[in-house]
Amino acid sequence: MSSSTNIALLGTKFMGRAHSNAWLNVDKYFDLSRPPSMHVVAGRNPAETAEFAQRWGWKNHETDWTRAVSDPEVDLVDIGTPNNVHGEQAIAALEAGKHVACEKPLSDSIATAEAMAAAAAASDRQTFVWYNYRRVPAVALAHRLVREGRIGTIYHARASYLQSWGGPDTPLLWRFDSAVAGSGAHGDLNAHIIDAVRFVTGEEITTVEGAIEHTFIHERQTIEGGAGGEIAGSGASTGGSKGTSTVDDTVAFLSRLSGGGIASFEATRVATGYHNANRFEIHGELGALRFDFERMNELAFYDASDGATAGWRTIDVTRGGDGHPYAAAWWPDSHGLGYEHSFVNQAADILTVLGGGDALVPMPDFADALRTERVLHAAIESARRGAPIPIDPVV
Amino acid sequence: MSSSTNIALLGTKFMGRAHSNAWLNVDKYFDLSRPPSMHVVAGRNPAETAEFAQRWGWKNHETDWTRAVSDPEVDLVDIGTPNNVHGEQAIAALEAGKHVACEKPLSDSIATAEAMAAAAAASDRQTFVWYNYRRVPAVALAHRLVREGRIGTIYHARASYLQSWGGPDTPLLWRFDSAVAGSGAHGDLNAHIIDAVRFVTGEEITTVEGAIEHTFIHERQTIEGGAGGEIAGSGASTGGSKGTSTVDDTVAFLSRLSGGGIASFEATRVATGYHNANRFEIHGELGALRFDFERMNELAFYDASDGATAGWRTIDVTRGGDGHPYAAAWWPDSHGLGYEHSFVNQAADILTVLGGGDALVPMPDFADALRTERVLHAAIESARRGAPIPIDPVV
Amino acid sequence: MSSSTNIALLGTKFMGRAHSNAWLNVDKYFDLSRPPSMHVVAGRNPAETAEFAQRWGWKNHETDWTRAVSDPEVDLVDIGTPNNVHGEQAIAALEAGKHVACEKPLSDSIATAEAMAAAAAASDRQTFVWYNYRRVPAVALAHRLVREGRIGTIYHARASYLQSWGGPDTPLLWRFDSAVAGSGAHGDLNAHIIDAVRFVTGEEITTVEGAIEHTFIHERQTIEGGAGGEIAGSGASTGGSKGTSTVDDTVAFLSRLSGGGIASFEATRVATGYHNANRFEIHGELGALRFDFERMNELAFYDASDGATAGWRTIDVTRGGDGHPYAAAWWPDSHGLGYEHSFVNQAADILTVLGGGDALVPMPDFADALRTERVLHAAIESARRGAPIPIDPVV
Amino acid sequence: MSSSTNIALLGTKFMGRAHSNAWLNVDKYFDLSRPPSMHVVAGRNPAETAEFAQRWGWKNHETDWTRAVSDPEVDLVDIGTPNNVHGEQAIAALEAGKHVACEKPLSDSIATAEAMAAAAAASDRQTFVWYNYRRVPAVALAHRLVREGRIGTIYHARASYLQSWGGPDTPLLWRFDSAVAGSGAHGDLNAHIIDAVRFVTGEEITTVEGAIEHTFIHERQTIEGGAGGEIAGSGASTGGSKGTSTVDDTVAFLSRLSGGGIASFEATRVATGYHNANRFEIHGELGALRFDFERMNELAFYDASDGATAGWRTIDVTRGGDGHPYAAAWWPDSHGLGYEHSFVNQAADILTVLGGGDALVPMPDFADALRTERVLHAAIESARRGAPIPIDPVV
Repeated sequence: MSSSTNIALLGTKFMGRAHSNAWLNVDKYFDLSRPPSMHVVAGRNPAETAEFAQRWGWKNHETDWTRAVSDPEVDLVDIGTPNNVHGEQAIAALEAGKHVACEKPLSDSIATAEAMAAAAAASDRQTFVWYNYRRVPAVALAHRLVREGRIGTIYHARASYLQSWGGPDTPLLWRFDSAVAGSGAHGDLNAHIIDAVRFVTGEEITTVEGAIEHTFIHERQTIEGGAGGEIAGSGASTGGSKGTSTVDDTVAFLSRLSGGGIASFEATRVATGYHNANRFEIHGELGALRFDFERMNELAFYDASDGATAGWRTIDVTRGGDGHPYAAAWWPDSHGLGYEHSFVNQAADILTVLGGGDALVPMPDFADALRTERVLHAAIESARRGAPIPIDPVV
Repeated sequence: MSSSTNIALLGTKFMGRAHSNAWLNVDKYFDLSRPPSMHVVAGRNPAETAEFAQRWGWKNHETDWTRAVSDPEVDLVDIGTPNNVHGEQAIAALEAGKHVACEKPLSDSIATAEAMAAAAAASDRQTFVWYNYRRVPAVALAHRLVREGRIGTIYHARASYLQSWGGPDTPLLWRFDSAVAGSGAHGDLNAHIIDAVRFVTGEEITTVEGAIEHTFIHERQTIEGGAGGEIAGSGASTGGSKGTSTVDDTVAFLSRLSGGGIASFEATRVATGYHNANRFEIHGELGALRFDFERMNELAFYDASDGATAGWRTIDVTRGGDGHPYAAAWWPDSHGLGYEHSFVNQAADILTVLGGGDALVPMPDFADALRTERVLHAAIESARRGAPIPIDPVV
Repeated sequence: MSSSTNIALLGTKFMGRAHSNAWLNVDKYFDLSRPPSMHVVAGRNPAETAEFAQRWGWKNHETDWTRAVSDPEVDLVDIGTPNNVHGEQAIAALEAGKHVACEKPLSDSIATAEAMAAAAAASDRQTFVWYNYRRVPAVALAHRLVREGRIGTIYHARASYLQSWGGPDTPLLWRFDSAVAGSGAHGDLNAHIIDAVRFVTGEEITTVEGAIEHTFIHERQTIEGGAGGEIAGSGASTGGSKGTSTVDDTVAFLSRLSGGGIASFEATRVATGYHNANRFEIHGELGALRFDFERMNELAFYDASDGATAGWRTIDVTRGGDGHPYAAAWWPDSHGLGYEHSFVNQAADILTVLGGGDALVPMPDFADALRTERVLHAAIESARRGAPIPIDPVV
Repeated sequence: MSSSTNIALLGTKFMGRAHSNAWLNVDKYFDLSRPPSMHVVAGRNPAETAEFAQRWGWKNHETDWTRAVSDPEVDLVDIGTPNNVHGEQAIAALEAGKHVACEKPLSDSIATAEAMAAAAAASDRQTFVWYNYRRVPAVALAHRLVREGRIGTIYHARASYLQSWGGPDTPLLWRFDSAVAGSGAHGDLNAHIIDAVRFVTGEEITTVEGAIEHTFIHERQTIEGGAGGEIAGSGASTGGSKGTSTVDDTVAFLSRLSGGGIASFEATRVATGYHNANRFEIHGELGALRFDFERMNELAFYDASDGATAGWRTIDVTRGGDGHPYAAAWWPDSHGLGYEHSFVNQAADILTVLGGGDALVPMPDFADALRTERVLHAAIESARRGAPIPIDPVV
């Protein structure tokens, strides 16, 4: 019996690539009792999937994901497909007795997310959700500093995820099709920052007090052919014609935290000047934290007890010798990490957990990710009803 | 007949000092057809007022503000008193035929603010409101760049005014007494950023879609004696006893702009790490702008047309030779300005307007400031009712 | 006998203005036992000087500086003229029994600087040199932190003063005429950073190990008329003709410090992108400090003992409550100061010293400033000889 | 005949790991006509080398590097060993008819570097030197902008490479042994920034005008056992005893550029607060560039032609759509890259060149790297002789 973990990857686009990189590299940097084996990848397009498998070193490839999921040699099903198929795939994998690592958000509908969490609860398998930003070292350190009481009682959490690729010239990608994506910036970006605020503060979001959901650009150019790469048309696909975006370009909302603080969230795809500004500021009685993924190797920390020399400390979170999360696995100090390292770090933690160990910092399972889904759902309800929405406690 | 403008200042505290500095220095830096004459200052405490007048060079001083206001030699009444007396003083001044420059916010109640605007409308005198941040050169430049179409159609305005002096150890100053201050962070800080968003975008705020008003610290230490400097007790004033704060520590709200964009606002006194972070980010289709008063001599500008070299430009807004607002009046390039220069710049514009000229950038009168008051009012209504609040159009 | 300090100002250009502002405002912010009286200003042009006196409130004005210096009512002669007349004026003032505050650098020649220091030593009057940047609060705090041992033994001091107004399009101002200015960027800018390194480290510069003196732009357009404002032609002054710059555009040099560390200095007028980047970085065994005048209200401090949360702290040096130097005299926290405040702060310290008190941080007298002159001189010697130059110890 | 490139790697420490990562990942991101085959790795310690080969997927492993170099299946010898063996290995590989990619600096002595360049000239094989920072996208973009004339005639290049791991508590690693390392900070760090200035400006360094070479910490704790990881003792290796560092902790020098500009360089291991601040600032007549590896995904660019909106542009150099170097191979915009990506990018260029294509930006061969060696050599000569040293033109 092998000591490795056999993996089936579903999806060969952006996330398929990020996950493949993680499985390829994780055992080069981390010492693992159950290293990964890149067993099989499944994708819809035969030629693309074959090329993908060859490039990344997947031993087998499939166009029928159900065969990959039911393969008896597979230990872990890794879901990197669009949101609207997460539920079916994850539940099938759990029912086939596999561990499941699912891309975020959990699903495109609250009902499916609930069903996924129920399936996970009914299974003895492990579930994981790829909220990869938790494993950006700066975010993990922020979590740790809050745990250590360095900022005290939390007053404010202010999170925004600002991108700018969704202006009027951007064509009608699948991400603008609510039937596929579920939502626009909201599920794509707010999901991350809701998770980040929950993770870093260690608190739950108890209400949405007010919200705006808005689409700036309704008509977009459709795409000839309708598929390929990150691009998929919805409706008519003749170049030169127009189709309708059915998702939000931005959602902003105001919330309360379980510890008595206030939180604000904003996701947008039209924040000209920002490309991937996944950022938060958290203020407590004793200190504060600030993060921006555009400078992902830095965490800003303010310690009010510093007196005359108090100032935002720009911590270069790459110092293994200082115990920075995940840093010792990589390079010397200030030899910065990149985006995909967060996936490698999560892959290491997933394999560690499957090997009976502990993740370095808490990792969301389906039950945990469902709480984030409920906040996403409440925000939309609040925007549409023009009323505060309490969030159901999760048992 | 004198060519100078005789000024009566009401108030000798923080704003009295900032305004006195402005009147003292304005004609050293600006060439004015009607330079100021520091005619009379009025304050409640006789000894303090006399000392204040002597220090700043006011020719006369009074403890009865009505005498200053009715002094026939006075041309302009400059109001730097607490919010709850602005209305009475401003209306009396207008009725006495004086021009009026009033500190912000216009008043502590929407009714009084309406009355002030009505009195101004009924008068042939000029009114001005000290939204001094409009005359921070970086903010004035932001206004100008929007006017020039450099950022195009506006999608997002994101404004926050973050301070941190209001933690649990801060005693019960007058600023925590709603009877005097009207509100807490809201009137003090949100007023500034509402004005800033209106000024820079050139748009009006048409709704409050959702809001949170919150007081974190309800009980504060009272102050022995109850007065002096910036400090005034409310209720019992024996040291060691506790009194109740009756104002918000934070107000956050979400709005829509008249041009179709989205805006968010947040004011707080417990944002540990920030001391005076009066800041905004504005994103348009073609570019974006970012300002933070903690780096007041800088404006960040993103021009999407820069292509491969597009990046946030940190503009050092101190270059007279490049036409930066107000810069030529002061020092060579990058010999930065400070807080009080914004008041000097506004004093220059007030005197220029009174001399028949034009302000360098638009300056709010009572009618204009009333629009800001209505947004402040709507935000509180929205928070209290848990509902969106449309904002009355101002004729 | 008057309790005020009667001042005679020599010079009505850039520095005349900065000094006038300081004398006008200093007693508004500082409580002084011997406040200033703006007694007389002297300038060469009668009309300009009269207008200057009227604008700034000087009681009297003169075109013959020797009359101002010998006026029996004058206590302090404040020299804001070009470098080549400092020596004659300062020595005359000392001989007339006046205290002297002289603009930096001390002189345009080492011989004159020595003579000035000798005259000061022979006098019982006080001398002061306007190295105003010592009184930028961030620089004063840096000095204090070094004194407190917060950075330990000093390894490196890296100072540069980078401006960019001296490109090929800039005409032949008096600052390009060595007969008037003595040198170019060197005396103008290196003087400041040599003083800053000496002040902050508390060490002396013991050698120049190597240096470059360079003029990039030799021919410049001459100026019609040849005078006015900051501008003065040298040689032919017909518009359209060319004249020769006789000063350096840049001087860079490497030095050793008396405590065993290494220091580098660079001044330039052609550092495109920087306008007034007067900056230093100082690294010690326990920590480090960084300053840039373009963000004058900030000091960066690194405390190596912070362990996992060590990072450059951006200290907003405006917090009176935290004891930041000079901050309590001015505004609330983070209501930033500007360039001219450093002169006001120095004016306060000069008047405090003349009143028998102590300056908040050490202030250079002629003997102290002579040490800076010797470093300036050694740098040029090193560049011209291509050899290391030891610096004479000053007794 | 295989279409892949068979690689022999020499060295299994820090650089062995960085190079292995590059060969492992390069064909996942780049489309290559001659992808790499990780054929053999050679290291001195048998067990370590076997484990290293297994971890990274090297097909074979050796303890005798000469066998790897002479293996007929090998196309490219990749040298990642200490500086003092580069020469012997590179020359042997060239003589065996292999292409060679050698770590920087070229050697530990100028004589050996000359011999290496001569061997390369006499061979028809390709040589490459791992000045990996050229392939940090921001540095490659800086190079491109200079080439495009965006900053004009260059006045100043100011480069420093600041680290802080070499304080008094750091033991006597092999890096402090001149017999192994050749020099300290100088060869390790100045080599990189000399190469960077040459690469970005496109100019040569023609003189060293003055220099300081300094060792702050002479005695260091020796290491028990004397080997392992990045650590190797020199002399006595009993824990608790002291040994002597025989390398510089810092070297700073001043130079002239072939285009008429001025350049300064500084490398240090005791710049507390900086961990890997490999940085430069380059000022030209029309603009300026600034880079700091601690924010490796950013390039700052100042375009003087921007007029009133001129400011340092912080360019997020990760935008494939905007043509940023290497960006299209990786992730969406602002999904930042890390340290090791520079090696992957260089591996891609090496393989492209070997396949008959062009590197994206110029890549140093031995002849080019020799020029950098000559600058390193001249700096030490200048420091030791106390005199300017001209640098031999390279034919």
